[in-house]
Amino acid sequence: MQNHRISYPASRKIYVKGEIHDIQVGMRQISLLDTISVENGEKKTEKNAPVIVYDTSGSYSDEKALIDIRKGLPPLREAWIENRGDTEKLPAFSSVYCNDRLHDKRLDAIRFPVINLPRKAQKGKNCTQMYYARQGVITPEMEYVAIRENQQIEDLGIATHITPEFVRSEIASGRAIIPANINHPEAEPMIIGTNFLVKINTNIGNSALSSGIDEEVEKAVWSCKWGGDTLMDLSTGENIHETREWIVRNTPVPVGTVPIYQALEKVNGQIAELTWEVYRDTLIEQCEQGVDYFTIHAGLLRAHLPLVKGRTTGIVSRGGSIIANWMSRHNRENFFYTHFKEICEILQQYDVAVSLGDGLRPGSIHDANDAAQFAELSALGELTRTAWEHHVQVLIEGPGHVPMHKIKANMEEQVKHCHGAPFYTLGPLTTDIAPGYDHITSAIGAAQIARYGTAMICYVTPKEHLGLPDKEDVRAGVIAYKIAAHAADLAKGHPGAEIRDNALSKARFDFRWKDQFNLSLDPEKALEYYKAGHLGDENDHCTMCGPHFCAMKLSKEINRQQDCIN
Amino acid sequence: MQNHRISYPASRKIYVKGEIHDIQVGMRQISLLDTISVENGEKKTEKNAPVIVYDTSGSYSDEKALIDIRKGLPPLREAWIENRGDTEKLPAFSSVYCNDRLHDKRLDAIRFPVINLPRKAQKGKNCTQMYYARQGVITPEMEYVAIRENQQIEDLGIATHITPEFVRSEIASGRAIIPANINHPEAEPMIIGTNFLVKINTNIGNSALSSGIDEEVEKAVWSCKWGGDTLMDLSTGENIHETREWIVRNTPVPVGTVPIYQALEKVNGQIAELTWEVYRDTLIEQCEQGVDYFTIHAGLLRAHLPLVKGRTTGIVSRGGSIIANWMSRHNRENFFYTHFKEICEILQQYDVAVSLGDGLRPGSIHDANDAAQFAELSALGELTRTAWEHHVQVLIEGPGHVPMHKIKANMEEQVKHCHGAPFYTLGPLTTDIAPGYDHITSAIGAAQIARYGTAMICYVTPKEHLGLPDKEDVRAGVIAYKIAAHAADLAKGHPGAEIRDNALSKARFDFRWKDQFNLSLDPEKALEYYKAGHLGDENDHCTMCGPHFCAMKLSKEINRQQDCIN
Repeated sequence: MQNHRISYPASRKIYVKGEIHDIQVGMRQISLLDTISVENGEKKTEKNAPVIVYDTSGSYSDEKALIDIRKGLPPLREAWIENRGDTEKLPAFSSVYCNDRLHDKRLDAIRFPVINLPRKAQKGKNCTQMYYARQGVITPEMEYVAIRENQQIEDLGIATHITPEFVRSEIASGRAIIPANINHPEAEPMIIGTNFLVKINTNIGNSALSSGIDEEVEKAVWSCKWGGDTLMDLSTGENIHETREWIVRNTPVPVGTVPIYQALEKVNGQIAELTWEVYRDTLIEQCEQGVDYFTIHAGLLRAHLPLVKGRTTGIVSRGGSIIANWMSRHNRENFFYTHFKEICEILQQYDVAVSLGDGLRPGSIHDANDAAQFAELSALGELTRTAWEHHVQVLIEGPGHVPMHKIKANMEEQVKHCHGAPFYTLGPLTTDIAPGYDHITSAIGAAQIARYGTAMICYVTPKEHLGLPDKEDVRAGVIAYKIAAHAADLAKGHPGAEIRDNALSKARFDFRWKDQFNLSLDPEKALEYYKAGHLGDENDHCTMCGPHFCAMKLSKEINRQQDCIN
Repeated sequence: MQNHRISYPASRKIYVKGEIHDIQVGMRQISLLDTISVENGEKKTEKNAPVIVYDTSGSYSDEKALIDIRKGLPPLREAWIENRGDTEKLPAFSSVYCNDRLHDKRLDAIRFPVINLPRKAQKGKNCTQMYYARQGVITPEMEYVAIRENQQIEDLGIATHITPEFVRSEIASGRAIIPANINHPEAEPMIIGTNFLVKINTNIGNSALSSGIDEEVEKAVWSCKWGGDTLMDLSTGENIHETREWIVRNTPVPVGTVPIYQALEKVNGQIAELTWEVYRDTLIEQCEQGVDYFTIHAGLLRAHLPLVKGRTTGIVSRGGSIIANWMSRHNRENFFYTHFKEICEILQQYDVAVSLGDGLRPGSIHDANDAAQFAELSALGELTRTAWEHHVQVLIEGPGHVPMHKIKANMEEQVKHCHGAPFYTLGPLTTDIAPGYDHITSAIGAAQIARYGTAMICYVTPKEHLGLPDKEDVRAGVIAYKIAAHAADLAKGHPGAEIRDNALSKARFDFRWKDQFNLSLDPEKALEYYKAGHLGDENDHCTMCGPHFCAMKLSKEINRQQDCIN
């Protein structure tokens, strides 16, 4: 097994203490060099304040932390959960399937070495963040995210924009969620909502054709290194249960899944054999493992199927196509829909959020914003109300493939139907004609829909439509989406979002090359490209123009000349 | 020297004849496989019409054409120009510098082997496309671009949207240009205007630190292969004159330059030594070589310099910083501005378009849309009127670094000040924090500004801010910008733009993998990625999901089941 430690250049982990609760919020502080200039023959030195950036890497980037993926990450939230006194440790796992796997000796070799018994709400209790928020309680999780979101402005003495109370009210109203399963205490609290920083989700997961456990854990850590805010494990191959255990125990961000994938594995891929009972046991299995949110395609109804007929690409959501197939074969209504209250009753006992899947999202420009898509969206609005009655936190999933002029309508329809629940979109891809570059076609759409209010954007890698992403694809996808999310934060006027841009641009103008790289989203790549063109000492001009033609060098000279003139 | 032939999979070069003029417009036709399906146990075959796409590769992709870069491309437009009877072949080059180079024996080894004497308007004549358009003349160039822009819809029997007369009227009004120097007859006519397909420019060019002639020609052809509509040669190193000759003679798209770069070389990089006379000779030298458009920073005035003071990144335009420096040193007004009428008198004799440079474009998010930027833009509007009085075609250059919420104002200000002249922007980059990925930060902005009406977007490569692009960087930059341009064409509702998307998505849904690759912007990359994940026969499911979980496969099954039910 690899050493999964993460390090960023010129960076150190800092912790900011809470005021309400005894909490410590990890952040990354990037130190900068001095600005050195010469004025009237005299050397002048100006200090540059360090820049604090949002950090999704958890303990992996804390050099003092002990990292051992066979032990998992420290259970940051365990005491907070315990202190609330409304949950209990169970004497055994509740899922039949989970227990079967646990007692299967053949799996010992791939099993996560530590067995944590699961936690569940006490009988009659509800342990969701939404429930607490509605009771007027500011939990440690809420204060944690308030500090985390403010990090960039506190140093500047700007009045705090996001207070713990504001977080509480946003969660109470359903406009934001903190996905925080009580069985995933390792995760750092993180908030998803239109009034917060735009978040990005990354997908990993082996398929029947592909990778193993160690590779998946490595990809999870890798995704957190580059800035993934949540991680969906979309595995569909063998040993899903054991793979997921390794991932959850070692991932410092919320983990999501699409439970129907595993349920289908349990019936050997025979869609007709799927039952509510198998699915229910799968939900419980995953609730007790610590999955923080489930994608459930409960809004794709029988009545919607005829609407798919005129499409170019039919149904492109895997989960959607499974449940559509099941309905079509059995001539029955979607069992996610008919059992939705029971689903909420399960989720509220673990604080698992529901991400209402868009099984009918358009898979091509041609199918964008069609009747099928919006009919399902309307059903998702109805389900949102049901979930909120159970204080279950809700995300609404969105497309897909959408040309630019139809993007805004997606956000508007979502707001109209879904009562302000956070929107979580896959891109959208703004054209179909660039397989191999869909991280770009979709970053163009994601930046725009995020600007209009989408709270989280699900990354797309260069391998979309072509194959499963490897590590370099994950990196390319995460960075493209960090760009889209940050571009949206700037456009939304998120306080402090511009600090990093300004610091980097000042470094660029000062020819502080190292600072420019260290402040960038991917310092390693920037340095690599710079080195490829670097031929010597370039402290006073940029690599693109050469010494005689450097605009920024000339610009400085003008400043000096203007100083003399004025 | 390399063989520079270009081939695209399953594609052939076709030529569409003109109706007014004896012209042949080259296009690329992609042939598709049949759709094969099974219904009620019976195999059904459906033909798929070939797709015709816009083609910037000129003769390089015509297997019947003879390609020899030592001879240059065939002079497609020579007879058209000659037939107009308003130009003459000169007995010798007019530029002093050009003649010096021509008679320097030491340069024989790197000189382009064929010497073409230059052509110029007869005394008192004006030979610009704008002049002809205003006389009510539809030139072969105008009919050529009309056919070229319509290619995708003619086969569908949709009424022709873009007529030769429409092209003429757009050029007469200044809303569109066809950059077409009479000394670059090798170039295929191409139109830039808000009512036409969005175009992309690519930059190549050696700097003092970098590459040689052969590499530059190879990059030019490479750029045309991937879809660059125009090519700017930004060389600043040695032998600019000879390098440019090789490029112009072998490039089937319009070529642009920034003449001040070469003028500065001629005075050994000493900005104080720059004079109108040196610059004038450089303009004439390049007009007679066949450069199709010049970037001239004539709107950056002395009065604007104090506005730069509060900026984070000062002046980031190379040309802008040179002239600003010159003004500042001499305490005199910009000589591009004071000599602008003389410049137009030169340009109108060769039909070189002027691209009014934005020397004060913002180089950081902080500096976007500031007083300096918009003051210069207003001056560009004044210069546009002057150029149009001389029937000189005009482009207006735009930023730069602009956060998303400030992009639209750029287009609005441009329209307000510049009388409808086509806008030509560099990106804009929507954040500063991703060096190494600025093809993405800027494609996000370029797609949006193009949607608002920008006619041409100048590509940015992954090496932006870090070094000079190599071939793979050029490819990455061109494809990112083809994506942005096409996304904008879709959003603008350009007739026929969706045909390629629809054909590709249908191929995707049919599992016609080869068609999907062949229809994509980069078939080689798509195939490469597919092969990396391909483990055998995958004719009925996609590589991402594996056989049991393929959404599109399941979606087809539902269609069949629904057919039985309904």
